[in-house]
Amino acid sequence: MKNEIKIFSPATVANVACGFDVLGFCLDNIGDDMVIRKTDKKGIHITKIEGFDLPFEAELNVAGVSALAMYEAAQPDCGFEIEIYKNIKPGSGIGSSAASAVGSVFGMNELLGRPYNKTELTQFAIKGEALASKCEHADNLAPAIFGGFTLVKSVSPLEILEIPTPEDLYATIIHPQIEIKTSEARAILPKEVALENAITQWANFGSLIHSLHTSDYDLIQKSLHDVIVEPHRSKLIPHYKEVKEAAIQHGALGAGISGSGPSIFTLSKGLENAKNVKEAINKVYSETGITFETHVTKINTEGIKILN
Amino acid sequence: MKNEIKIFSPATVANVACGFDVLGFCLDNIGDDMVIRKTDKKGIHITKIEGFDLPFEAELNVAGVSALAMYEAAQPDCGFEIEIYKNIKPGSGIGSSAASAVGSVFGMNELLGRPYNKTELTQFAIKGEALASKCEHADNLAPAIFGGFTLVKSVSPLEILEIPTPEDLYATIIHPQIEIKTSEARAILPKEVALENAITQWANFGSLIHSLHTSDYDLIQKSLHDVIVEPHRSKLIPHYKEVKEAAIQHGALGAGISGSGPSIFTLSKGLENAKNVKEAINKVYSETGITFETHVTKINTEGIKILN
Repeated sequence: MKNEIKIFSPATVANVACGFDVLGFCLDNIGDDMVIRKTDKKGIHITKIEGFDLPFEAELNVAGVSALAMYEAAQPDCGFEIEIYKNIKPGSGIGSSAASAVGSVFGMNELLGRPYNKTELTQFAIKGEALASKCEHADNLAPAIFGGFTLVKSVSPLEILEIPTPEDLYATIIHPQIEIKTSEARAILPKEVALENAITQWANFGSLIHSLHTSDYDLIQKSLHDVIVEPHRSKLIPHYKEVKEAAIQHGALGAGISGSGPSIFTLSKGLENAKNVKEAINKVYSETGITFETHVTKINTEGIKILN
Repeated sequence: MKNEIKIFSPATVANVACGFDVLGFCLDNIGDDMVIRKTDKKGIHITKIEGFDLPFEAELNVAGVSALAMYEAAQPDCGFEIEIYKNIKPGSGIGSSAASAVGSVFGMNELLGRPYNKTELTQFAIKGEALASKCEHADNLAPAIFGGFTLVKSVSPLEILEIPTPEDLYATIIHPQIEIKTSEARAILPKEVALENAITQWANFGSLIHSLHTSDYDLIQKSLHDVIVEPHRSKLIPHYKEVKEAAIQHGALGAGISGSGPSIFTLSKGLENAKNVKEAINKVYSETGITFETHVTKINTEGIKILN
């Protein structure tokens, strides 16, 4: 058995339109690299962090907290060193903390001979994610671990469903480099919603799940609507409406807020469309004066993976 | 081409738990018989009604109104006579008016050489259904026409999705012979619902659609919950809770209000379970003094059909 592995821990999109709080998907070429190493020295030790300034104390680091949760459950005869090469900017809305939380437990599980299944890994990772987001949720963790589209049916008990990914589906993501406070993104949500809108939302969501099962791109397009959360949270993202309109005009099936923003995701059929969408939204944002990044990526059906 | 056909127009369950207002399914051995006959005399004429006391004037009869809607669109060189042998009691909550609305247009379409597709037939039937329910909805019509499980994604434009039916799924239905006024069933619904409950509902609904695609009976069981409507409307049905509990104790995957009641539907894996559930709920209701009927039926994946 190996003593060290290098991992790619992917970025993810949660809150997929009408699937707010439950549906997420996994990105392919955006993510963190991590090295997990078995050590004789007991305990969890974060030995290297590159990319962003994050705490080295395991108890204060998302990857450390999830690692500790698994370490306490597994009670192994060894310890672990964790190196984090962070590419996903914290607070970007594409699962930065989830990638860290997942990476450590996935790597440790591999080095221990896979004592835990994917749902159990998610359960450990929830503890790390909770450090960042102050509540236990799994909507970014599940797609990172399982790959593809995941539906977190419930957190307690943790129940994750793997939804099929149509083969030709690509995401274009724009990350405007602004900060949205999680507290603000939460406070702007209504506590109550109109029954009529809730019905529209679950009609669309049921339809979206059906469309993913049947690879019906037209139906994906018709279903990717969020009448509950987007009207509120989109106010926090400058030029949201223009980005969405430009994306759809240039071939996107739909668009929505990634996580609680500020990133915006769009889905397209085929790489060409996804690239055209990137050009179109680049154009919108290049006129705003706000720094931004855009990414085009296939939906990653594999999820987190070993690199060496 | 035939000049007369006999039709079986099935009963249906709408408002399937978390799929309130959008998901329905079709029953197999409960339904109305209808005879549709081409005539030289123009117009729509209802010539026979057996079973229940309903108006013969086409404009005042659900089957007549949907027939007239299609007749005006098709402008055929003939007229039609309609005979209705009604078995589904009006107001029972298992799509009595929908069966009538669907039967006439299905039969006429057959006799005219099928100029209309199933969605178009549903569109005509909506006009008939609206006479009975005072609003345009298709959640009982769609399963009667398409068979199996249907998701009415939207009424305007009319968009109906056919959801797969797991092979071994049976329904047990109890119809307590009480009257629930539609106005009361509507008035008892809240205008606003907690966002948290709405999220639970669409998590369950997405999960239910997934479970129907994957024939995952355990997941059907875990998904058949309605946290939005059932808590209110179940108050209108005497002994609702006892029926539901007895059904689940005796092997049902779940239960809910059929349509707006008073019928209660349960779903089970396998005929044996469905029969046991029937015994269990018979026992509950036989102690109440309320007259009732129970039915065990396979999910009808064919929908409305020609008998001769």
